[in-house]
Amino acid sequence: MSIEEYVNENLADYYDLLRLKTIAAQDIGIVQTSEWLVKKFQQLGATRVEKWDELGGNPIVFAEFAANKAQTVLFYNHYDTQPAEPLERWTSDPFEPVIRDGKIFARGISDDKGELIARLLLLQYLQEKGELPVNVKFFVEGEEEIGSAHINEYIAAHREKLNADVCIWEGGGKNEVEKFQITGGLRGIVAFEVTVETADYDLHSSLASYAESAPWRLVQGLASLRDVNGNILIADFYKDADQLTENEEKILQTNTFDQAEVQKTTGLKRPFLTADPKRALVNGATLTINGITTGYQETGVKTVLPRFASAKLDCRLTPNQDPKRIAKVIQAQLEKNGFADLKVRYIVGQKGFRTDLNSSYAQKAFAVAQKIYGADQVCYLPNASGAGPAYAFGDGLNLPVLSVGVGYAKSNDHGADENIRLSDFLQATNYLNELLHEFGC
Amino acid sequence: MSIEEYVNENLADYYDLLRLKTIAAQDIGIVQTSEWLVKKFQQLGATRVEKWDELGGNPIVFAEFAANKAQTVLFYNHYDTQPAEPLERWTSDPFEPVIRDGKIFARGISDDKGELIARLLLLQYLQEKGELPVNVKFFVEGEEEIGSAHINEYIAAHREKLNADVCIWEGGGKNEVEKFQITGGLRGIVAFEVTVETADYDLHSSLASYAESAPWRLVQGLASLRDVNGNILIADFYKDADQLTENEEKILQTNTFDQAEVQKTTGLKRPFLTADPKRALVNGATLTINGITTGYQETGVKTVLPRFASAKLDCRLTPNQDPKRIAKVIQAQLEKNGFADLKVRYIVGQKGFRTDLNSSYAQKAFAVAQKIYGADQVCYLPNASGAGPAYAFGDGLNLPVLSVGVGYAKSNDHGADENIRLSDFLQATNYLNELLHEFGC
Repeated sequence: MSIEEYVNENLADYYDLLRLKTIAAQDIGIVQTSEWLVKKFQQLGATRVEKWDELGGNPIVFAEFAANKAQTVLFYNHYDTQPAEPLERWTSDPFEPVIRDGKIFARGISDDKGELIARLLLLQYLQEKGELPVNVKFFVEGEEEIGSAHINEYIAAHREKLNADVCIWEGGGKNEVEKFQITGGLRGIVAFEVTVETADYDLHSSLASYAESAPWRLVQGLASLRDVNGNILIADFYKDADQLTENEEKILQTNTFDQAEVQKTTGLKRPFLTADPKRALVNGATLTINGITTGYQETGVKTVLPRFASAKLDCRLTPNQDPKRIAKVIQAQLEKNGFADLKVRYIVGQKGFRTDLNSSYAQKAFAVAQKIYGADQVCYLPNASGAGPAYAFGDGLNLPVLSVGVGYAKSNDHGADENIRLSDFLQATNYLNELLHEFGC
Repeated sequence: MSIEEYVNENLADYYDLLRLKTIAAQDIGIVQTSEWLVKKFQQLGATRVEKWDELGGNPIVFAEFAANKAQTVLFYNHYDTQPAEPLERWTSDPFEPVIRDGKIFARGISDDKGELIARLLLLQYLQEKGELPVNVKFFVEGEEEIGSAHINEYIAAHREKLNADVCIWEGGGKNEVEKFQITGGLRGIVAFEVTVETADYDLHSSLASYAESAPWRLVQGLASLRDVNGNILIADFYKDADQLTENEEKILQTNTFDQAEVQKTTGLKRPFLTADPKRALVNGATLTINGITTGYQETGVKTVLPRFASAKLDCRLTPNQDPKRIAKVIQAQLEKNGFADLKVRYIVGQKGFRTDLNSSYAQKAFAVAQKIYGADQVCYLPNASGAGPAYAFGDGLNLPVLSVGVGYAKSNDHGADENIRLSDFLQATNYLNELLHEFGC
């Protein structure tokens, strides 16, 4: 029986995982789901199954399938999902998987329970055949959707057990033009707050004749950090930024980016900030104001001179950039610009990570994909534009990190009617099977 | 019996007005209070009492005491007050006037029922003596605290009846250094909103690599309108601004302004925006951000690229400036600066007004004040820094407008424990009596 036939036949056995509500943000189902996984790994004949929770946070389920092979593959997945609300936007119950029009609908079917199921089914298939081509390890965390706050500590504490040669990441699949996309990492992110206080009380706005106010300080301070074309005007901001290699640059430019389509679906009213969005999404940094709050925000008029103003911002960073350093250079630049009264408070950050495109694992992933999907049906992205804890494996364990997912451009991760196409699911599992064998050669 | 003795003896008869709750913002007590006034004017022997409500809004009570004199004085007052909440901050019931330590406490005792009572008591006194030195008219509105939205229409509709020689305004009294302050008008104000929309949806902040967002447009557009020293960078903004005459400039500079005290009570953290706050408060214009709202403002982090941002602003204007024109030049400057996508929406405006310092009425008000309060205990302010509908009388009826109030620097208008000093009240009524006689000469 081919892997695709096998997966198709046994998929429904795993629906129980999708029926479990596992919402990290609401602390729902964490214990049940992690225990379900422990049992499943035991059923699959794992040589070691552990639940790590000694350092706080939601438990990490670790499983090892030692096969005495030269190569070891570490799968990263997470068993928590986003909430399903608002439920009325779903065509069917998000916690009762159904297949309609060749698509499986369920919360987490793409992000990330479905992808985990593909890997579990592959393990089951290989175990039944008695022929694991590589040693396999699973690191399945339960708080990815709320920021993976404990991941570094757990990796440091269990470094030995996590030894591997390559890490297969979550996410990815087919892109907007139906090409299978392999992704070598993620950008970094730093989220911070900027606050300023100009008086002990809100004052009457007639006093603006002599009294400075918080909104102006905030507006003028922030405006000093970026020009109207989106260029970041912060000294040393790019000091630790990556350069794309010639090869990365070349392969990146073979990807597609449909600017007209983006314009249409987002309704963007301003010109694009870059002539090369493909490059900017992979190796550009950003400075975004996520929100501003100050003074009177209700209907009508209040003639107030606000004493306090705050903004939340994030920076998307090139993979090598240090989030904490970025918060510091922003504070320093504000001071240089005469805005020492604006205080930067680091909230949270995640370094990015980019796999070396020349790594044999990246090369093999690409070559096997061409075999399965077609020579011109594969593309490679040095790193995704989003953020995630890949650095904890890439930097922390010194592994290549590759995303080779089961989703597609309309999977609607985090939204209503999250879905994947059954055909993609089968194809991706087939691909993963071939890839493990290739890695094991 | 002297006027001061008379007022002291009969003041309590007017407590009923203070016992009425008259909160325009909550539409409380408007009918009862306006009817109380109509009856009171009738009791005082007014030759004409009218309640104007045919043009909408809270009724205006108009009363005329025709005395066949050459001069006519028009009193402007309002019978509505601010809400008294939070009540727990009051030492005693805000709607039961009490005298403690020589001070009368009640909501409206300073702003503006108490001042109206002083004028009613003076009328009663003069009527009993049978010797009105001037014809007297009262224009008592009921929506000053919510913006006097209908005042222009009523003045236009009743222009003939409102004919007078001088308008005695509300407010004022003794200032921070216990000098009796005569004020010749008010600054203007325009309140407006600036909004910008950059997309049909909030986007994921990773897309900031190519997509512009509303907060940046707003921040950069606003920042382009003002420098960090508070200078307004808007073409034609000052085109219709007033010049102070040499005389106004001179008298203005004799006033006191205790910068250290202001610094102490407000806790201002930034340097003053002007080296001459006295002048700036009288003849300077401002551009204030009253509030900004955009994007995510809750706790924690949301990596969003907001599609919409809005700010509320006000400008304090020199008395002659046209509020609607100001909104237009701001829109025009934004367009010139490359921010045509920022839309200015005029919300509300009030032109200011400044009485000619050389007017015989201003001169007489000053001279009589020197007689009553002491030659060096009087100061003159060409106009207050705040706003109000004085222009409707000053421009609309072509009258000098003068404030000669009963309050003092700690009257706490709009706040808890609003109060005036009984001695100020008696003295101010005495002053007003002398002033009417002087006007009548």
